[in-house]
Amino acid sequence: MNSPTRRIAVPLPKAYLLLNHGPVMLVSSASGERRNVMAASWAMPLDFDPPKVAVVIDKSTLTRELIEASGEFVLNIPTRTIADQVLAAGSASGREGDKFARFGIATDKATIVAAPLIAGCAGWLECKVIPEPRNQQTYDLFLAEVVAAWADASVFSDGRWHFADDAQRTIHYRAGGHFFVTGEGFSV
Amino acid sequence: MNSPTRRIAVPLPKAYLLLNHGPVMLVSSASGERRNVMAASWAMPLDFDPPKVAVVIDKSTLTRELIEASGEFVLNIPTRTIADQVLAAGSASGREGDKFARFGIATDKATIVAAPLIAGCAGWLECKVIPEPRNQQTYDLFLAEVVAAWADASVFSDGRWHFADDAQRTIHYRAGGHFFVTGEGFSV
Repeated sequence: MNSPTRRIAVPLPKAYLLLNHGPVMLVSSASGERRNVMAASWAMPLDFDPPKVAVVIDKSTLTRELIEASGEFVLNIPTRTIADQVLAAGSASGREGDKFARFGIATDKATIVAAPLIAGCAGWLECKVIPEPRNQQTYDLFLAEVVAAWADASVFSDGRWHFADDAQRTIHYRAGGHFFVTGEGFSV
Repeated sequence: MNSPTRRIAVPLPKAYLLLNHGPVMLVSSASGERRNVMAASWAMPLDFDPPKVAVVIDKSTLTRELIEASGEFVLNIPTRTIADQVLAAGSASGREGDKFARFGIATDKATIVAAPLIAGCAGWLECKVIPEPRNQQTYDLFLAEVVAAWADASVFSDGRWHFADDAQRTIHYRAGGHFFVTGEGFSV
């Protein structure tokens, strides 16, 4: 972990707070020598403690193959800075060539799972699949337990997002290369 | 439907675009004479066509009881204008008294399901539960097919969001009464 990002551990019962506002995610995976990364908007928290998540992973993807082989993945929460990599990772298939090399996607090692942590992200959830074959086969739906969670301390700490500038903000995918940035915070 | 909102039908294969950016939702439900509304951040698209959704509904809630009795619900996508109602609906239990009356939450009739459409929202998805007892019992996870979808034409049409002012924007829930507004759009 030589990145300038100051990565801090997020207590597991607070891990859902990284996802609660519905940002787009990058799903990274690895099995043996192979690894991949894809974009996913269809992911959400499923439980608080132990934290669980649900994510849709299409049967046609290399990611699906690697997750089924390893039982592991990482949900990475990208910032606006790497929106171009999110779009590229979401548009290309890992079967066409290594996306990390093609799109200049940098990584660090995770702590528990083999899948990498994607650089330029604001949060990371290391996940282990909870095998539910019917969901996986019928709905492409994977449930997983979050076994480690990390955040970039410059934007998330003590269970709170605190974006200082626009480039650091998380993003939300619409369609066709169009995103929304996470906007201003407000309270009621 | 006497509201000033110009509600237009969203073609079902485009219904997921109402949810894709991860806004907080209101889940409305009805069974017999009883009805309720709760807030949910843990909901996501599950498929394009026919459109399906996944949503977490805790066992303790009145909403759970009404959805299990009726097999139906509506996912309503609120705007910033009614953020106070979203927080109130998410903080109180329907067992303590009718939330619609207590919090001044206005409704219109849906077209296919008995659950109401919540006024002041930007989009509405009428849903029928796909019975998956194991998911419901083990994970509080409900899968459903979207059988009708609607949008406020002033903010969503032709499969695109086009927010004109801040009050009309959709919102994303953090925790503790704190939200993010859906921010500026950008393309890469």
